[in-house]
Amino acid sequence: MDEVLADPIGKFIDIYQREHGYTYTLDQMHGKEFRDLLPEELQPTLREYINRKGFFRDLELIPDSREVVEQLCQKYDVFIVSAAMEFPNSLEDKLHWLGDHFPFIPWTNIIFCGYKIVKADIMIDDRIRNFSGFDGRKLLFTSPHNIAITEYERVNTWDEVAVLLL
Amino acid sequence: MDEVLADPIGKFIDIYQREHGYTYTLDQMHGKEFRDLLPEELQPTLREYINRKGFFRDLELIPDSREVVEQLCQKYDVFIVSAAMEFPNSLEDKLHWLGDHFPFIPWTNIIFCGYKIVKADIMIDDRIRNFSGFDGRKLLFTSPHNIAITEYERVNTWDEVAVLLL
Repeated sequence: MDEVLADPIGKFIDIYQREHGYTYTLDQMHGKEFRDLLPEELQPTLREYINRKGFFRDLELIPDSREVVEQLCQKYDVFIVSAAMEFPNSLEDKLHWLGDHFPFIPWTNIIFCGYKIVKADIMIDDRIRNFSGFDGRKLLFTSPHNIAITEYERVNTWDEVAVLLL
Repeated sequence: MDEVLADPIGKFIDIYQREHGYTYTLDQMHGKEFRDLLPEELQPTLREYINRKGFFRDLELIPDSREVVEQLCQKYDVFIVSAAMEFPNSLEDKLHWLGDHFPFIPWTNIIFCGYKIVKADIMIDDRIRNFSGFDGRKLLFTSPHNIAITEYERVNTWDEVAVLLL
């Protein structure tokens, strides 16, 4: 979900601008995690924001994600698999967010987990750790933190996913 | 989780005794779902009870589940996979319940889903629909509703699981 369907980075940028007066840009993240941009004393606050009820409830959509996923559902059995379990307070927010933006995905096809031990043909993910142990085709969805990784088939946008899979 | 680690049936029996004056026993369920015992006018209430916040928070443990799962964790990578997504209000309750009773299972190894499209070697489940598409060894954990099913390897208790897998 995060950085593939939903955009937490945009919300991080807003929060640290509003609450702490820092102006960060996506360019600064090139190959880094957002937390690496923060001064050391602010780094623990990132986890606190993520853990707050409501954090995941109003994230913006990654451009074209809804439209392309809806088209993918015509051709594939699409599952949303989110490593949400690290943040217990995110579960209900994520489920409601999916209900708002991806109402065509039935509850049967939503998975909240830690390790993604799923059996599927294709995985679209921004974290290469989730490809570990996955047998199918791996599509690395571009996010600022993974920009320097070269050893996977990459998709930069949902339009590129559409070209490859539709 | 339900009917394998946690006991919703015992709670159903208590609720319908207390709230509606019916006395049901496990013997009556032989090969049936609990809802099939209810008079037709009460059948919709079962889903309402299950959907209430807190329903899954205080379920009793299935005997020996904690002890045997803890021992299994010494020998296997154990994942808890629950088809919880049908009941959005259950997610936090189930996660907190696991934290109370199975604190040795890390968040990385907890999965809430609909269809169980997991890649694993062994699945212990009370619902044969969850075995569909699963390649590994299937152990049908006895529950009143599945008592008449004969085509799967069956485990009646966690002690039997221990004998087979430890």
